[in-house]
Amino acid sequence: MNNDKFERTSHVVLTSHSNQIFKESLPINWGAKTAKERGPVVATISEKENRNAIGSHSGSYTVYRALSIANGDFPKDHRPELFNTHSPVTIKPQDSWFDPDKMVAIDPWGACVQEMYTDYLKEGYNIKPTIAVTQARLHIPEIFEAIKNGRLKVDGDIVADDGSVKVTKVAFEPVWYLPGIAKRLGIKEGELRKILFNETGGMFPELVTRPDLKVLLPPIGSTTAYVFGDINKLSDPSVELTCRVHDECNGSDVFGSDICTCRPYLTYGIEQATKTAQEGGVGFIAYYRKEGRALGEVTKFLVYNARKRQEGGDSAETYFKRTECVAGVEDARFQEFMPDILQWFGIKKIHNLHSMSNMKYDAIVKSGIEVVNRLSIPDELIPADAQVEMEAKKAAGYFTQGDIKDGAALKEVVGRKLEE
Amino acid sequence: MNNDKFERTSHVVLTSHSNQIFKESLPINWGAKTAKERGPVVATISEKENRNAIGSHSGSYTVYRALSIANGDFPKDHRPELFNTHSPVTIKPQDSWFDPDKMVAIDPWGACVQEMYTDYLKEGYNIKPTIAVTQARLHIPEIFEAIKNGRLKVDGDIVADDGSVKVTKVAFEPVWYLPGIAKRLGIKEGELRKILFNETGGMFPELVTRPDLKVLLPPIGSTTAYVFGDINKLSDPSVELTCRVHDECNGSDVFGSDICTCRPYLTYGIEQATKTAQEGGVGFIAYYRKEGRALGEVTKFLVYNARKRQEGGDSAETYFKRTECVAGVEDARFQEFMPDILQWFGIKKIHNLHSMSNMKYDAIVKSGIEVVNRLSIPDELIPADAQVEMEAKKAAGYFTQGDIKDGAALKEVVGRKLEE
Repeated sequence: MNNDKFERTSHVVLTSHSNQIFKESLPINWGAKTAKERGPVVATISEKENRNAIGSHSGSYTVYRALSIANGDFPKDHRPELFNTHSPVTIKPQDSWFDPDKMVAIDPWGACVQEMYTDYLKEGYNIKPTIAVTQARLHIPEIFEAIKNGRLKVDGDIVADDGSVKVTKVAFEPVWYLPGIAKRLGIKEGELRKILFNETGGMFPELVTRPDLKVLLPPIGSTTAYVFGDINKLSDPSVELTCRVHDECNGSDVFGSDICTCRPYLTYGIEQATKTAQEGGVGFIAYYRKEGRALGEVTKFLVYNARKRQEGGDSAETYFKRTECVAGVEDARFQEFMPDILQWFGIKKIHNLHSMSNMKYDAIVKSGIEVVNRLSIPDELIPADAQVEMEAKKAAGYFTQGDIKDGAALKEVVGRKLEE
Repeated sequence: MNNDKFERTSHVVLTSHSNQIFKESLPINWGAKTAKERGPVVATISEKENRNAIGSHSGSYTVYRALSIANGDFPKDHRPELFNTHSPVTIKPQDSWFDPDKMVAIDPWGACVQEMYTDYLKEGYNIKPTIAVTQARLHIPEIFEAIKNGRLKVDGDIVADDGSVKVTKVAFEPVWYLPGIAKRLGIKEGELRKILFNETGGMFPELVTRPDLKVLLPPIGSTTAYVFGDINKLSDPSVELTCRVHDECNGSDVFGSDICTCRPYLTYGIEQATKTAQEGGVGFIAYYRKEGRALGEVTKFLVYNARKRQEGGDSAETYFKRTECVAGVEDARFQEFMPDILQWFGIKKIHNLHSMSNMKYDAIVKSGIEVVNRLSIPDELIPADAQVEMEAKKAAGYFTQGDIKDGAALKEVVGRKLEE
């Protein structure tokens, strides 16, 4: 490995002054008909005069990149070598790309900067992709089990002889068009900017001092979409589409904690997505980095303790209340922005939506996508301790094909004690 | 669910001016002998005059919290209700807590603010825990398999009849003591502050305008530790300790992608940690949110494509080179800060370290922890396509009990093509 150390910069210019407006920065016309007309998002740091966005690339990993520079591991003049990095499948622009309201949390052109902005790249603009597409083969124990039990078949294409599943996967960095974000929330852009600045402890003064910069790359987690079958079928409403929009839950998704249904619901969604692809349809799983309802894992664990210790035990009746007491809100996931990922693929109709969340359903429908069937997690996949979450959510308006408990019945759904 | 909307603030004060120094803020004496002497970290937003840190709580989720406020979902006067949120196990302060150099990336007192700062909390200081401890039962398919194959036994305590594994788990928010971070990197604090500000696109001007504020809560991912067996045995060097320090890889950890060894190595580590706990020792897994070598998933996918498309195919010989070309660095994980989590538990000796990384090993040893045995992933758990990563890492100095390839032999280790 390379042990060369690189020179670091020594000059600081505060971003809170308006003399930071440069004529060399390219305009961004959100929702324009072509990539050229729209203009590239330039959020790299190498030439400050070319920047036309607030924030930086790689979401929260920008902090680690800064450490690399502090450590002298990163050459100041580094340009990403984009040769050979492009998508292995053709990504076709969709009508939604030209509608400034359909996508406000990702950059529709983010996967094609290599082809679309060749001239600017040659001129020396440091433009980085914010979307990357690749292909993979998934080895998932629950899928091996489904094959063994005859629920899924090996077909030598989608499911290989070794039980692995072929997918196209797409990673999305957050790119926020602030006027669109404000519109989606129903507040004024200036108000949004002030609050984003104030309530993060003063992140990016440009939010308030540079109203001319309309795009923010916030330091938050990315989203990954997994496509089962032909990616180009996603935009065809006549092709059966099975979809799960999944919010990260590390404790269950990776470690299999039984207090919630996250991993079982996810792997069931993958099984159904695979099946639909094998039957000539297409499967779609999106994974959003919104740990603990976007409140983070520290808050989540504090809430677990408060739930399990309260009088009467961990009860479905007080499930949401405990989160609100600790965190200030029940949920911070903002499903309003979730459908942007679906819009990028041109999805217009979901035949099978594997989600019980009314917030997700409402957001999808509001964005103009038709939902035919809603499917809840099969009862046999719900861990015993997760019944509290399940009944609480159903009582609060989550979708179910079954009964909804209330009053005394809801109170009686009690989970394991903390020490057990 | 609650549909009340709360009033939002309208006043903005830039943080780039020095009139933001308040006498009401409590001093922080990093490494002091008692919690009271050390002083609480106050990074909440509710009373700006009490803040004694840069940034805010919940890592990158602070951005979602800000959105909740923008949306009117969050009461301005909210105080976290900390009743019942405390750890279910006794957390004993360790000698390492009183050494300002042993922990610089987390707050040793972060799990005990409920007890340690009762007086301040009563006075109205809004102090939030940055560490949370809870208990859980893990249901992991690979562990069920290990039980079935007789490698693990049900004991009714660590491993229950249903095959679930009992753990204590601890979530850590990043809390950076900037002088310590700079010292660990071997650079001047002022230099670190300037680079953190400049290279993140101008995040937190206080980094340069407020040298009196020594603590930063950066908007990055958290870390989670899983303890198998008695948490208080971790600090006893005479008790056998099996440990894996794992960096997040969502594509493998959750989705089982076969291009790397991440999930197999993790679940093998969990199996061994469980076994050691059953034999009277203690197991420890730490999960660091550092996706794609802390470069993020977009970069990771771009690199996958460049690796698989290069002349000669995806080869072990050029494994690190491709990341450097795209990202500017081979790796941004800064293992230098990783051992802080081990120090928090008072770990002094690791009998079985399940990691091949020389960077992790070096960092652990440098922090003063003895490592007895290093264990590489068993060959039968390495997916075929991950041989490229495996051989490249061994050739670059990663630990192995086996042979190290070089020259032509290294070039011959070639992975699947992109389309396959």
